[in-house]
Amino acid sequence: MISPERLTAQLAHLNKISAPDMGPGIHRLAFTDSDWQARGYLMQLMEDAGLTVQEDAFGNVIGHRTGADDSLPAVMLGSHADSVPSGGNYDGIVGILAAIETIRSLQQDCFKNEHPLEVVLFMCEESSRFGAATLGSRAMRGTLTPDELHRFTDKDGHSLYEILQSRSLRPEDIASAKYAKPLKAFFEVHIEQGRVLEHSRIPLGIVTGIAAPTRLRVHLHGSADHSGATPMALRHDGSCAAAEIILAVEHAATLHSDPPVVGTVGILRVHPCAMNVIPGETELGIDIRSISSAAKAETVRIVYASIRAICQKRSIPYDIEEISNETPVIMKPAVTDFLAGLCHTQGKNFIKLPSGAGHDAMHWADYAPTGMLFIPCRDGISHNPAESAERNDIVSVTEILEQAVRTATKQSFEF
Amino acid sequence: MISPERLTAQLAHLNKISAPDMGPGIHRLAFTDSDWQARGYLMQLMEDAGLTVQEDAFGNVIGHRTGADDSLPAVMLGSHADSVPSGGNYDGIVGILAAIETIRSLQQDCFKNEHPLEVVLFMCEESSRFGAATLGSRAMRGTLTPDELHRFTDKDGHSLYEILQSRSLRPEDIASAKYAKPLKAFFEVHIEQGRVLEHSRIPLGIVTGIAAPTRLRVHLHGSADHSGATPMALRHDGSCAAAEIILAVEHAATLHSDPPVVGTVGILRVHPCAMNVIPGETELGIDIRSISSAAKAETVRIVYASIRAICQKRSIPYDIEEISNETPVIMKPAVTDFLAGLCHTQGKNFIKLPSGAGHDAMHWADYAPTGMLFIPCRDGISHNPAESAERNDIVSVTEILEQAVRTATKQSFEF
Repeated sequence: MISPERLTAQLAHLNKISAPDMGPGIHRLAFTDSDWQARGYLMQLMEDAGLTVQEDAFGNVIGHRTGADDSLPAVMLGSHADSVPSGGNYDGIVGILAAIETIRSLQQDCFKNEHPLEVVLFMCEESSRFGAATLGSRAMRGTLTPDELHRFTDKDGHSLYEILQSRSLRPEDIASAKYAKPLKAFFEVHIEQGRVLEHSRIPLGIVTGIAAPTRLRVHLHGSADHSGATPMALRHDGSCAAAEIILAVEHAATLHSDPPVVGTVGILRVHPCAMNVIPGETELGIDIRSISSAAKAETVRIVYASIRAICQKRSIPYDIEEISNETPVIMKPAVTDFLAGLCHTQGKNFIKLPSGAGHDAMHWADYAPTGMLFIPCRDGISHNPAESAERNDIVSVTEILEQAVRTATKQSFEF
Repeated sequence: MISPERLTAQLAHLNKISAPDMGPGIHRLAFTDSDWQARGYLMQLMEDAGLTVQEDAFGNVIGHRTGADDSLPAVMLGSHADSVPSGGNYDGIVGILAAIETIRSLQQDCFKNEHPLEVVLFMCEESSRFGAATLGSRAMRGTLTPDELHRFTDKDGHSLYEILQSRSLRPEDIASAKYAKPLKAFFEVHIEQGRVLEHSRIPLGIVTGIAAPTRLRVHLHGSADHSGATPMALRHDGSCAAAEIILAVEHAATLHSDPPVVGTVGILRVHPCAMNVIPGETELGIDIRSISSAAKAETVRIVYASIRAICQKRSIPYDIEEISNETPVIMKPAVTDFLAGLCHTQGKNFIKLPSGAGHDAMHWADYAPTGMLFIPCRDGISHNPAESAERNDIVSVTEILEQAVRTATKQSFEF
């Protein structure tokens, strides 16, 4: 049985573990004292749940529950406990507590899992300290390089390598953190960090994929002329060209709905940004995401063509720099259908939805059947002290996670 | 005869009068040492041209040429010699030199002007030092208040009042600067500061009016949501609403062509301006100008209605602050036709065009028949070290100014 009281108490305990004197919210940047304190607390909870706790060279915590045949591939559960500055008490935390509570429940009724189980606290999921995200997962997948450990530095100039050393971890042995054993499945619970569930009034989401961005930086070289002395027909107005591009991005994104595409112009700067000067140099930062590589590529293609046509029409030279083009992750239908079946059996309302944000789970989807469950967070707010999730929703998603584990650890079960 | 050599030598002399060690261009902020030095030089040129030179309480320099009947209303010519930081050598300068050269030419052939003539060097035309423009003209029209002299301060915190005192002027007696005598006409020559003449390949413009801006500051209160986790349909994207508003301003301005309206969104700021966040709070600065009050008011009305419709459609709350709403000046057709007639007689190609920028002349148009003549500046560039005008164009416009003066000072001539 999943215990609402235990989850509530653990959430309350973690809500107090934050760097002092930093203002509202959770301040638990990766590998800082408060993060280390939360890690210690979670290791204790893992031990209380009967797990055998180990750490890898990067500091990821792996709690092992022996299977009836411990040589079989494990079922892995996990999430993170670090936070952004002024973060909330649910991002990551809900996932790691749901995983530990699942094991607690198995412990209580002496469940005999055939496959072994592993609960992983992934370190350094947030990019806030070192400018790069999901580093613990990357270490376990063997894709975090020694070079990056030296190259990634925090705002005080300390390299990730130095920081790992200061925690008595083994950056020189980062290759040993690679998870080399086969895995039967990976599951992660997380808050949605969006408003789709809340808007649908549905308390549970099964993630169909994790979107990855293509990001463009566009520079428009308009003419910064006098706003009074330049007739409309003689202008090369950077803000007008930018306006057409913004609406072209919005329109291109709405052409795809299944799977959806989102397109955002989050960065917009005009120069000289003065009331009496037509904007000349104008910069746009465009972020296009989908869980479908094809839909994303098609949208990016339309955006490029739109920019070309708009700038040609307005005689404005431009540059486009593709600053990232990541590959989305699609969750196997076998896994989403498995989770949907459990929800039906348990009488729980759910929808399937893509994740717009990145998560640890995205690093496991190409390695093992991977499932991810979302719960709503109030007003979609995350990375903010106002982040909030309902206890009932946390309990409910943990019950599905537990059922998933009870089923997936059976040797007779195959995805 | 207008002397090209004299004008060239005077331009070259003034080109050297600039604050030292400030980089390229002219640095002659109002009442600074370099401005005072240029003023001294121009006073000398006025005396050389036979003018009786006086200064008013604000420091405006008034050179008087006695008329056959000196009790008649004067014909006034004038412009300014101060500059913006890193300004050019033609803005203002061309106008004051053309005025003095005109008097020189009258002096050479002992022309007997029936009405008296006055050449005025207006102080502090640029807003760069005290944040307000055409202050010398305002002093002479009696609209510069003692309160403003205390209120207007430079970046070092010195009030205009203190600065006038430091130049041994009489800020306490500002009211005495008011030009109380009737005036027969006012003429000003200036570089266009736009690209209309250059684009038309016409070296001379007769100004039909001086546009005045209505300026709006618009705040859009969008929702700064996660760019990946927020579906297109759940967004309240400040940049998309801003984009529609920018295009609505552009479209509304192009609805009027005679007289034209110009509309510019020169200020555009999105928050938090990050690649992965949909813009929430978004600020626009809108500048709408015309020489027609009615056309401007109609455009402003359309812009208000567009903002309302766009923000309603996108469910984005907004505020509009009208930060200025100035009245345009229309030059009397009698004056523009008079100048056009002189151009025809002299065989000079010209077009009539509105001035988008403000000038000293705008303060005289309601007081006396006022005419303004433009010459092209290369690429429309002004307020910039690259500002440039052709000697032939300067000479040509001065010839028209001279003809205007020879005619307008006749007692038999009436507008």
